[in-house]
Amino acid sequence: MNDVELWRELGQQLRVDAIRPAARAGSGHPTSGMSAADLMAVLLAKYLRYDFDRPHDPHNDRLVFSKGHASSLLYAIYRAAGAISEEELLSFRQFDSVFEGHPTPRIPWVDVATGSLGQGLPYGVGMALAGKRLDRLPFRVWVLCGDSEIAEGSQWEALEHAAFYALDNLVAIIDVNRLGQRGETMHGWDLDSYAARARAFGCHAIEIDGHDLEAIDRAYAEAVEAEGRPVVIVAKTVKGKGAKEVENRNGFHGKALERSDEIVAELGGVRTLRVEVAKPDTSAPRHAFPAGGPLELPRYPLGETVATRKAYGDALVALGRARGDVVALDGEVSNSTYAEEFRDAFPERYFEMYIAEQQLVAAAVGMQALGWRPFASTFAAFLSRAYDFIRMSAISRASYCLCGSHAGVSIGEDGPSQMGLEDVAALRAVHGSTVLHPCDANQTAKLVAAMADLEGIVYLRTLRPATPVIYGPDEEFEVGGSRTLREGEDVALVGAGITVHEALAAAAALADEGIEARVIDLYSIKPLEAQTLRSLRCPIVTAEDHWPEGGLGEAVLAALADADERPPVVQLAVRGMPHSGKPAELMAEAGIDAEGIAAAARRLVRDQVSAS
Amino acid sequence: MNDVELWRELGQQLRVDAIRPAARAGSGHPTSGMSAADLMAVLLAKYLRYDFDRPHDPHNDRLVFSKGHASSLLYAIYRAAGAISEEELLSFRQFDSVFEGHPTPRIPWVDVATGSLGQGLPYGVGMALAGKRLDRLPFRVWVLCGDSEIAEGSQWEALEHAAFYALDNLVAIIDVNRLGQRGETMHGWDLDSYAARARAFGCHAIEIDGHDLEAIDRAYAEAVEAEGRPVVIVAKTVKGKGAKEVENRNGFHGKALERSDEIVAELGGVRTLRVEVAKPDTSAPRHAFPAGGPLELPRYPLGETVATRKAYGDALVALGRARGDVVALDGEVSNSTYAEEFRDAFPERYFEMYIAEQQLVAAAVGMQALGWRPFASTFAAFLSRAYDFIRMSAISRASYCLCGSHAGVSIGEDGPSQMGLEDVAALRAVHGSTVLHPCDANQTAKLVAAMADLEGIVYLRTLRPATPVIYGPDEEFEVGGSRTLREGEDVALVGAGITVHEALAAAAALADEGIEARVIDLYSIKPLEAQTLRSLRCPIVTAEDHWPEGGLGEAVLAALADADERPPVVQLAVRGMPHSGKPAELMAEAGIDAEGIAAAARRLVRDQVSAS
Repeated sequence: MNDVELWRELGQQLRVDAIRPAARAGSGHPTSGMSAADLMAVLLAKYLRYDFDRPHDPHNDRLVFSKGHASSLLYAIYRAAGAISEEELLSFRQFDSVFEGHPTPRIPWVDVATGSLGQGLPYGVGMALAGKRLDRLPFRVWVLCGDSEIAEGSQWEALEHAAFYALDNLVAIIDVNRLGQRGETMHGWDLDSYAARARAFGCHAIEIDGHDLEAIDRAYAEAVEAEGRPVVIVAKTVKGKGAKEVENRNGFHGKALERSDEIVAELGGVRTLRVEVAKPDTSAPRHAFPAGGPLELPRYPLGETVATRKAYGDALVALGRARGDVVALDGEVSNSTYAEEFRDAFPERYFEMYIAEQQLVAAAVGMQALGWRPFASTFAAFLSRAYDFIRMSAISRASYCLCGSHAGVSIGEDGPSQMGLEDVAALRAVHGSTVLHPCDANQTAKLVAAMADLEGIVYLRTLRPATPVIYGPDEEFEVGGSRTLREGEDVALVGAGITVHEALAAAAALADEGIEARVIDLYSIKPLEAQTLRSLRCPIVTAEDHWPEGGLGEAVLAALADADERPPVVQLAVRGMPHSGKPAELMAEAGIDAEGIAAAARRLVRDQVSAS
Repeated sequence: MNDVELWRELGQQLRVDAIRPAARAGSGHPTSGMSAADLMAVLLAKYLRYDFDRPHDPHNDRLVFSKGHASSLLYAIYRAAGAISEEELLSFRQFDSVFEGHPTPRIPWVDVATGSLGQGLPYGVGMALAGKRLDRLPFRVWVLCGDSEIAEGSQWEALEHAAFYALDNLVAIIDVNRLGQRGETMHGWDLDSYAARARAFGCHAIEIDGHDLEAIDRAYAEAVEAEGRPVVIVAKTVKGKGAKEVENRNGFHGKALERSDEIVAELGGVRTLRVEVAKPDTSAPRHAFPAGGPLELPRYPLGETVATRKAYGDALVALGRARGDVVALDGEVSNSTYAEEFRDAFPERYFEMYIAEQQLVAAAVGMQALGWRPFASTFAAFLSRAYDFIRMSAISRASYCLCGSHAGVSIGEDGPSQMGLEDVAALRAVHGSTVLHPCDANQTAKLVAAMADLEGIVYLRTLRPATPVIYGPDEEFEVGGSRTLREGEDVALVGAGITVHEALAAAAALADEGIEARVIDLYSIKPLEAQTLRSLRCPIVTAEDHWPEGGLGEAVLAALADADERPPVVQLAVRGMPHSGKPAELMAEAGIDAEGIAAAARRLVRDQVSAS
């Protein structure tokens, strides 16, 4: 067989193998794989540089199925590459199979989970950026996109950043099969509409017939020669290509094909082609940044006032000095989050992601997939913009750090749009996440250091205002720990961040009235140290600069839910919509300042007395 | 004064009035207002059609400050229009003022809150779409955008949809002042980069010098003549324009100007120009859709099995028939959410938003601002994509309905990317929200009807699989209520959605063992009917198809937190990362099926016995 004949056969094999697993499972998206089969055949046979025996080799190209629902096509590729068996292919979507409905890194050759559309390309940008700027290796990132998902704004954030950072190692292949889940896309087969947009965004766009194998070959040849610009291949394809019954017809998205045996026969039957995928040139070493020596964290004298966001910046620099794998990214607010300190100290390892929080998080996810340890920062409130990416990155089994500054009403005059008031709820509800909320600068520094070694998504919540340094620089803070700042048996005041200081002031005021309040700094909101809480025998006041739902208060309640002793808990939180004002005014209005905490404690203690 | 002289004076007044309130407050973004002052002067004096005495008149143009941080400029406009006093202007950012750091609808002339960048334009698209297709009035929507915020993907979702829907009543004005918060934007003063992108997206783009008053006038004249395409005016401006000390210099974002008196003097001092803003032509009536008659909800016979998502679609059609103000939007999954039923019944009131969840929610927010009652639907998981828009819409005091389908592991084979497992946590943590999760079709229909009259953001969580109809079609379900489905004093099983059916099966199994389990359907997760829960004197098992954080279980714990009796609660929820598999397999693995619930109940009852 000559090349074209091989590619044709391979394309048919991939098509057939995209159909069969779905037919066996009774569900899946075979028609979405069939449209892209020829595109993938030529890629696999000629252009991809990948060692399937060494999926974590940093020299490998990366292949991302942004249209993750075409997963059976991806698994068909693995079979053609000899990486998986017929049985594995046919285990598709079964309970005990890693070959799920949408790809995840449970499969060795998958770097990032997809399935929420418009995410593969932003992750690809993160990997391509790492390839250019961090790894400094000539691998290429190939991203197969659907046409429907180009409507997601995140795709344009991705192309914008790819062009800005001159990522000519990134190739997006748009499989324009015209049909989305419920009907035609906005642009149908108008390839120009995609190409014109991509060009305007600074990409090199190539329009082809996605079933013309020689045209595909020429497009890839052009793509690998591109310099200075990311490449977007806009390929006109036919959904369900090759099966007359469903070809280019609406109503066959996300459905296993009936009469699949006949359709497989129509496509020429089951094949057993095995492609020798070219391995990458592994001669160039992966770049490493000079770093070393013991970690020397910043030290803040007791009694000074320092914002925890400032301590984040300081500690991140210390971490960057000790560890060459630490990188930082920020969403155009580095002078507020203090990520700018890292930028100035290690400009090669800092990435400005501008006001594009989805791409900010996606870049971090892409970079961690290649072994880097990213710290991505913005205002806590604006992490909500990237919540779907954070959610998906848990499915990616990603490990990276997020910092959200400007938590709660304590930011003051800027008003509610800038106040993170749902970030703890949102980040707690991410599988395997860690949620930390320090109250002073030394504690922040220690926690930043700890973050770098944790698995999963690690979130640090920092404060805008400067707060007193209450911990010495040599104190240690365990993730999953808490700190009892004051002993007392009448009532326990539990806070984190700004409310720790308010609780301390409340306890002092209560002591004057003869009420002994215990004060607990619950800086590790997830994981939460339950034992201290479960050993309490007095009523509890929780105070948080956050909505009452899903925050520190509910985390405390969950820790106590089935305890033998369950003292009453009063949850102080922000219950009214805040507005502009001075931090102290807003804390008082929300009832989470010292006075509010003391008042709640007083009521609880009185209730206890009157009940006994 | 001729026009140009007037505009020049007005521009200087707006500049001065953007500076003064910030100087008084000691914070704010005066330089961001100064760049756009000339653009706004010409708009106000000649093009805006607005009756400040009747802000809710449907004939009014709409003015949205997408760059919400330039709020002092907006308030300066109100002063120039005679809508607010000098004192009100200078109350900027004070605790008791509605003139906050970022605009909110506490101010009568503000339709939507801004301050999270990249949102004003998508909201504007919603309003312009309502103007064209719903109100059918010739008002225009003017959106002032910053240049930094064009990096947000949501802006491109907005322009894509604006062009697709031919919104020639939408004018985006991009204030290209080159400088973001921490430095230069990606594109600096390269106006072409913005214009080329906008044109590629199908908009009519006009490039001007944003301080050339005659050029501004010509651009607006061209904009109001545009046909069939949205207009994007790309204006080169100077940040801090007019104040030598800060003009075009980095480091002056988000800072009140020092020596403001001297700068005001440099700008010619305080002025008291009063602009007579032209009022809109109110002769055309606002369109209303024919509707009426009593609401006739679908009725499902007891014992049938019907998916709650199907009942959503059925009920929405019934609602649409009874009420002409109800409109529906969906993110390209209407055949899954069943919004397609509304589309087919009322095509004029249905809006396909394609795979662009941010624009989906933003369009709903824009439409409700004009008095429509939107129901926006997608998979529950994908609402996470729009979380920042949902968060901000609470600050907008918006009232609209969201439906998230495909909740939890009960969806089965598609895997975790498609499973809504954090949606309850995320939506609970939205100020003033309502979170409903029905378990059967009749209950769903009743709740859909109730949703249409609620204030705030109302979320309905629906299921993929068909579930048995357990409630008769005449039962009523109060928002804020619960339903006790089975009496029992040994243990209480509390669920919602799919877990109600599992709890009923568990109770039946437990009864065979002599354990009497009470079963509570907590369909209204927020607001939550606390009294039933607080009256329980037996241990409680909560079961939810959701992560343990922030969901039904924690809502129950919060309701019990300070109760006199606090029985032990065991929270069953999805604790491991799910994957593909059959719904029953996945429910069992998570321990939230009948067997898992029964086992937890059994343990609790035994513990009680052994403790007593």
